Amino acid sequence: MIQRSYTLKELASLVHGELIGQPETKVSGLSSLEQATSQQISFVNGDKYLEQALASKAAVLIVTRDLQAQLTTHQNFIVVENPYLAFAMLTHVFEIKKIDVGIESTAQIHPSAMISDTAYIGHYVVIGENCVVGDHTFIESHAKIDDGVEIGQKCFIDSHVTITGFSKIGNNVRIHANTVIGSEGFGFAPYQGKWHRIAQLGSVKIGNNVRIGSNCSIDRGALDDTILEDGVIVDNLVQIAHNVHVGENTAIAAKTGIAGSTTIGKNCILAGACGVAGHLKITDNVTLTGMSMVTKSIFESGTYSSGTGLFESGHWRRTIVRLRQLADVPLTQIVKRLDHIQTRIESLESTFNMRK
Amino acid sequence: MIQRSYTLKELASLVHGELIGQPETKVSGLSSLEQATSQQISFVNGDKYLEQALASKAAVLIVTRDLQAQLTTHQNFIVVENPYLAFAMLTHVFEIKKIDVGIESTAQIHPSAMISDTAYIGHYVVIGENCVVGDHTFIESHAKIDDGVEIGQKCFIDSHVTITGFSKIGNNVRIHANTVIGSEGFGFAPYQGKWHRIAQLGSVKIGNNVRIGSNCSIDRGALDDTILEDGVIVDNLVQIAHNVHVGENTAIAAKTGIAGSTTIGKNCILAGACGVAGHLKITDNVTLTGMSMVTKSIFESGTYSSGTGLFESGHWRRTIVRLRQLADVPLTQIVKRLDHIQTRIESLESTFNMRK
Amino acid sequence: MIQRSYTLKELASLVHGELIGQPETKVSGLSSLEQATSQQISFVNGDKYLEQALASKAAVLIVTRDLQAQLTTHQNFIVVENPYLAFAMLTHVFEIKKIDVGIESTAQIHPSAMISDTAYIGHYVVIGENCVVGDHTFIESHAKIDDGVEIGQKCFIDSHVTITGFSKIGNNVRIHANTVIGSEGFGFAPYQGKWHRIAQLGSVKIGNNVRIGSNCSIDRGALDDTILEDGVIVDNLVQIAHNVHVGENTAIAAKTGIAGSTTIGKNCILAGACGVAGHLKITDNVTLTGMSMVTKSIFESGTYSSGTGLFESGHWRRTIVRLRQLADVPLTQIVKRLDHIQTRIESLESTFNMRK
Repeated sequence: MIQRSYTLKELASLVHGELIGQPETKVSGLSSLEQATSQQISFVNGDKYLEQALASKAAVLIVTRDLQAQLTTHQNFIVVENPYLAFAMLTHVFEIKKIDVGIESTAQIHPSAMISDTAYIGHYVVIGENCVVGDHTFIESHAKIDDGVEIGQKCFIDSHVTITGFSKIGNNVRIHANTVIGSEGFGFAPYQGKWHRIAQLGSVKIGNNVRIGSNCSIDRGALDDTILEDGVIVDNLVQIAHNVHVGENTAIAAKTGIAGSTTIGKNCILAGACGVAGHLKITDNVTLTGMSMVTKSIFESGTYSSGTGLFESGHWRRTIVRLRQLADVPLTQIVKRLDHIQTRIESLESTFNMRK
Repeated sequence: MIQRSYTLKELASLVHGELIGQPETKVSGLSSLEQATSQQISFVNGDKYLEQALASKAAVLIVTRDLQAQLTTHQNFIVVENPYLAFAMLTHVFEIKKIDVGIESTAQIHPSAMISDTAYIGHYVVIGENCVVGDHTFIESHAKIDDGVEIGQKCFIDSHVTITGFSKIGNNVRIHANTVIGSEGFGFAPYQGKWHRIAQLGSVKIGNNVRIGSNCSIDRGALDDTILEDGVIVDNLVQIAHNVHVGENTAIAAKTGIAGSTTIGKNCILAGACGVAGHLKITDNVTLTGMSMVTKSIFESGTYSSGTGLFESGHWRRTIVRLRQLADVPLTQIVKRLDHIQTRIESLESTFNMRK
Repeated sequence: MIQRSYTLKELASLVHGELIGQPETKVSGLSSLEQATSQQISFVNGDKYLEQALASKAAVLIVTRDLQAQLTTHQNFIVVENPYLAFAMLTHVFEIKKIDVGIESTAQIHPSAMISDTAYIGHYVVIGENCVVGDHTFIESHAKIDDGVEIGQKCFIDSHVTITGFSKIGNNVRIHANTVIGSEGFGFAPYQGKWHRIAQLGSVKIGNNVRIGSNCSIDRGALDDTILEDGVIVDNLVQIAHNVHVGENTAIAAKTGIAGSTTIGKNCILAGACGVAGHLKITDNVTLTGMSMVTKSIFESGTYSSGTGLFESGHWRRTIVRLRQLADVPLTQIVKRLDHIQTRIESLESTFNMRK
């Protein structure tokens, strides 16, 4: 584990920012505006954080030029166009990194497996027949890399991950703890009142620069493969069923589930706890807000939503009573009938010169 | 691991189908119509796949008699009544099977545990006091079989599964990676503003031919047991709380949760991400579509649904505004009032011979 | 493992109840009214269980004074004000406890870690640099306690739990199997069409008397910490994102997800499968019913709900059709227009002396 401090000059250079203040100011950490100490750097993510910035004890602030002009309380700045991005870059500078290399003595590795000399294999890891582990890949304790699985370079596989079903994992992939990749899909043929298991002969293919959170389940395909393209990011507790295809750079938030054989396009954002039914096609650049329920294909890019929102419970119960009546109420006719009736009344009234 | 090729004659016999074409045609794998090579067999699951079938390179097609007549492009067929079922049967022929037997040297097994000579126990498996593991059962690496757990014959327990709480597992049960069976139920007595834990004294009983996916949580009962009857199939990331009872051959898709003490009947289908509240009774042959929310018992067989469906987000926001007004709008009265008003207008009009 | 029997006198004393009947009656277990044998004790949780109580074979019943008067069928009672609480207390008496102490030979513990002499560390546990494990804490097999993690006294950490990210765990905390604490939050900066990972520099702080179920994911903070205060109880498969703050004694049921930087107050109850969006504030004493969807802060204590409830599917489909029309129907105007039209008709009618 490595942890050191940096000068303002070093940090400004790392994020290609303009330095204002004392170049030799020492910075030992990165923190929020509120919690920053006088040895730390922080960032101001827009005008709405101006007040917090004014009160912050941070030694250095990452800001836009506009913000810098308003922060007369502070002396040291890194001026950039996008402070959030500069902050994202600096998190890697201050991250405590593990730099182990080699194979712990307790790891069980099949003689046919090919493990790079620059990989790290933790305690009690089990790696099966014909597996491949690439350069600088880090496999934490207790991971299970089953027969025929291949993992690329610079990957991070956390503890208790299970990778099976001959899955192929690209480069620079991060898979967090207790996630399962390549387990068999939920495929059963109903026959004479019972469920007959369909052995799942497909696999999982995961591209480069993919990130998968903890406690996810990504099943292998029935015949063809389940595929996550390059740049896909997935949060925790996500279900990706057999034969799903997720396009490049799509982001999937926690607790979302995607049922079998559905295709999700590129650059989509699925917020938390969405449910997407099986055998659908969702085009590129679709955003689903949280808890969206998708039962039909989406052919047009855009933002989509589901659900009733939140009600005080008494109000909710009365709303549900009405909702149950709604099917039998010809909503669109009502307004037309009202208009029609109004016309007839006006005609009656004018005939008799009533109400003016 | 075993992988071999078969003749058309052998495969036709295995699925009790009629062979059309060259009996000695070699088949080395099973694939989708689209991806099949000229060494593989595929299946045509109804008329809607006819076009794909015509274009398929598959060496052999599994078809109905009707479909076969239309596929003049191909020479080799297996004709059956139910091609999907025949496909399901053949998946087992082409599945790569592990056939290990014995106990890996790194497994920790309590001397009082009884492990069949024909079972396989993987690396770093831990098996506690008085456990039983039946014939031909396969326990993958890192599984934890806690004290008093009994597992029947021909079971498959994948890596990182935790079975505890004296659970009893039947024969031919498959439990996928990282699932937890028998953990303590969420039982607390509120008293003086705090939660007092209720130790969970019940267990879990799982019947024969049950399938449980990855990352599931099935809790043990508070006093009595949590029960899954024979033939139940469960997908990934499913929550089954303490004292739930699931009837025979019921299927539960991914991300569904069933709260404590609820009873689900036989032959039910719960699609993905359903939520069933506690202490309910759901009768036999009930189907819940995806994301259904069940807060009352269901006494009639049938299909049930919840949710608003998906809206373009602007449309959704305007809909929610109206939904908030709905409780105070007497929907069923509106139509009656309209009818009544119309009658009165017609009466006025006829009195004065207006509008004919 | 310990299991013994108790006298009625002993049990009455343990729950501070009044003994009625034979003090030396032997009780070997605690059971539900329905399943209790004549060697077991059971409890009557209110009048609605009176019939079951009358039919119960239990040797002893825990009852209120009122109930006791009605149960002339039985001879032995413990009379208390709150039978459910007395039952909760007795579950601990009859729980089979593990009482191991010491470190299994297969555990891998970094020399810098400080493990109490009264702790138990199971098989294949891995404990990293500078970790601390307190007195009487029990860590089950295969757990991973990563570098810098500190765990207090009298904790129970079940198998396959992963604790990482320098998390700090208080005293008397229970974490169930396969849960992940301190994994990195889902933080990415979008830039030029790609997702740039933000290394997560915060940690997780868990107070005293906290309970976390199985298969949960609790992520570490981006800069500051994710915090669960004292007395929080969490069920299975729950997602708690980075920088969430959960107040004292709040209960979170299974399958709920809380997105990043949201603050939940004290004494809240979130029922199963709720979804709370990010950057919200929920005040104290809020109850959310199951599957609630929270997209705005809640400033008033109370009970809140979401969702449509369950419909027979045909009825549901017709309802959804209407719901899609709702946005364009001016609901609140309709009733006003009806009232207005009615007034005008009455005026017309009275002018002409129609209908009296």
